[in-house]
Amino acid sequence: MLSLDKVFDAQKVLKSIIRETNVVRAYGIAPECELYLKPENLQITGSFKVRGSAYKIAMLSDEEKEKGVIACSAGNHAQGVALAATKNGIKSLICLPDTAPISKVEATKGYGADVCLVEGCYDDAYQKALELKESEGYTFVHPFDDENVIAGQGTIALEILNDLDNIDAIVVPIGGGGLISGIAYTVKQIRPSVKVYGVQAAGAPSMYNSVKDGERECLSSVSTIADGIAVKQPGENTYELVKNYVDEIALVSDDEVASAILALIEKQKMIAEGAGATAVAAVMFNKFNLKGKRVVAVVSGGNIDVTSLSRVIDRGLLTSGRSSSLLIELIDKPGQLKDISRIIADCGGNVTGVHYEKGNTESVNGCFLRIDMETRNYEHVKLITESLRKEGFKIV
Amino acid sequence: MLSLDKVFDAQKVLKSIIRETNVVRAYGIAPECELYLKPENLQITGSFKVRGSAYKIAMLSDEEKEKGVIACSAGNHAQGVALAATKNGIKSLICLPDTAPISKVEATKGYGADVCLVEGCYDDAYQKALELKESEGYTFVHPFDDENVIAGQGTIALEILNDLDNIDAIVVPIGGGGLISGIAYTVKQIRPSVKVYGVQAAGAPSMYNSVKDGERECLSSVSTIADGIAVKQPGENTYELVKNYVDEIALVSDDEVASAILALIEKQKMIAEGAGATAVAAVMFNKFNLKGKRVVAVVSGGNIDVTSLSRVIDRGLLTSGRSSSLLIELIDKPGQLKDISRIIADCGGNVTGVHYEKGNTESVNGCFLRIDMETRNYEHVKLITESLRKEGFKIV
Repeated sequence: MLSLDKVFDAQKVLKSIIRETNVVRAYGIAPECELYLKPENLQITGSFKVRGSAYKIAMLSDEEKEKGVIACSAGNHAQGVALAATKNGIKSLICLPDTAPISKVEATKGYGADVCLVEGCYDDAYQKALELKESEGYTFVHPFDDENVIAGQGTIALEILNDLDNIDAIVVPIGGGGLISGIAYTVKQIRPSVKVYGVQAAGAPSMYNSVKDGERECLSSVSTIADGIAVKQPGENTYELVKNYVDEIALVSDDEVASAILALIEKQKMIAEGAGATAVAAVMFNKFNLKGKRVVAVVSGGNIDVTSLSRVIDRGLLTSGRSSSLLIELIDKPGQLKDISRIIADCGGNVTGVHYEKGNTESVNGCFLRIDMETRNYEHVKLITESLRKEGFKIV
Repeated sequence: MLSLDKVFDAQKVLKSIIRETNVVRAYGIAPECELYLKPENLQITGSFKVRGSAYKIAMLSDEEKEKGVIACSAGNHAQGVALAATKNGIKSLICLPDTAPISKVEATKGYGADVCLVEGCYDDAYQKALELKESEGYTFVHPFDDENVIAGQGTIALEILNDLDNIDAIVVPIGGGGLISGIAYTVKQIRPSVKVYGVQAAGAPSMYNSVKDGERECLSSVSTIADGIAVKQPGENTYELVKNYVDEIALVSDDEVASAILALIEKQKMIAEGAGATAVAAVMFNKFNLKGKRVVAVVSGGNIDVTSLSRVIDRGLLTSGRSSSLLIELIDKPGQLKDISRIIADCGGNVTGVHYEKGNTESVNGCFLRIDMETRNYEHVKLITESLRKEGFKIV
């Protein structure tokens, strides 16, 4: 049974394993409320997941420890289990689909786990893990639907309440629901007046749908940049806990998540992964009634691939008008690039790319010119566009 | 006169203004030593600069406070002075060249300063600030060459020594020398066995040259991505302090700085600006003898423009083989893209861009195909290149 006592016990046990991440005030991200962040992206392994795994593993019997643990994950859970097992001096085996990015495989090995690459997809790896659990006697560490795992995640609530007084609300990402179950359960036992809000990605609304419809549902597919919370079905335990202790759940879009990642970089100098930024996105885009409130958003993890990060930044720059691309229809005659360059330079735009393209122009003699620029904002783009139009250029 | 007592006084004064940033252990960045970071990028205003300015301003007489302060900067110093003045309830005026990025101007205004845009470059803005100081009676807040400013930066050393025992060395970025002067002076009074190492950008080695040659020198030009430490001449006070208290100075290249920024993102989930990452770069690239030592690198600031950040990441991905671009010479006949796509896909490469280019090919009928790809590392790029060659394609 989950109990407050268990969460306090987890806190004691985890003391020597995890970092206590301090709540920090976030300025300029959501001016309408007093926003704080619980930065679990700065947790060892880059995610909160290590808390639950480490408590689960510490609670195993000597006999179970002897045999070791097994888990199935290509992400934060794998690294959490690997490190927690290593710190407890026991063996861990992580099953991964053989399509998993090499960086994840290396990170998991780096924390001391053995890795079993399984041909196929996640479900194949999961089946393999269950088989090995049976045949070899490993203990299976579930990523969320386990009371000791949930108790471990609940220690985050203890730290938040200890760091900060007069909190009105805590906003928490939801994937399978382990994190929010631990936090909501703990908060409602200690200070029931604090609201606990959950956030899912619009492309993976499994808990949202289940709670709305009053029964645990399974999605046929999920798609979101918040891959860490792209879970098809809530856990049995976590579904019950969320239903009983969470005040409201909202959904955020991929563009909202990307904006939140960018805001955390610019205002807070920190990296969040997609899932990790969903709670901040929900606050930024007013998914809950938080005006004038003191709010803690849990930034659950920071393990984003730099390639994805680069794409998110590029997209964020585009959507905020700080980079832009114009397609100009030209008559193919000398001197036009010179004029266009002058106009853009006079407006303070910075050209970063120029491409001539043939295409379906009005005149047979025409062509398209694509200009990439660094700009200040939408007004700046508009200023440049209008200046070009004024001198007779046709912007497509 | 700078004194240890002054640094302790500064610590007391700053308590209600700044954040005490906690030293954190950094794993995986420099495996040969035990590396810790002092994350002043997480300081309010995103840089340590607010410490010195705030102490300088707090020490002004009532009459001076009445008249307000003036400073000249387009960067972290401007924001530090603005916020420090606002928190002390006094007026601040910041002179900026009118070429300064609009984001910097907005940030400075956002912290409560009045902004005076001066036509021309930094030197023009500086002259204007001196004029206004004379005519209006403002107090000029120097970015580094001032004992109260230096004492304010010295509080960083007190926090480091309080956070961590048995430190062997502290590594600190050097621009004008205010930060390292404060830290080195303080450390050598309290625990002289701790080494203090300075780092400058290879493109702006003013303090490095001055100390080497035994006299304060002025560079004719500076060029580095670490723009926050691109200073042409050390201060008089800071030059003397560095000469007396700093053990060694090293230089880092722009590519080394870019790698350090990328490592801080990937391993530490934090954003550093160029200048802020120089100390970490020096540790990563073994500029000092730190093998097996317990080392603190000061990450001095995190105010990097996302556009620059995006470029740094792209460059980092390129230099580590995680993105790459191949130029393939083709004979212009159907079906070649199909074959090339197949070969790359079979090798696990991910095509992100395809461009046909006419050019000076061997055959009149030829053309160039440029393929952009996401790859795992250099070996992966090599594998793809060799597979293409094996099927008869000519890589330029």
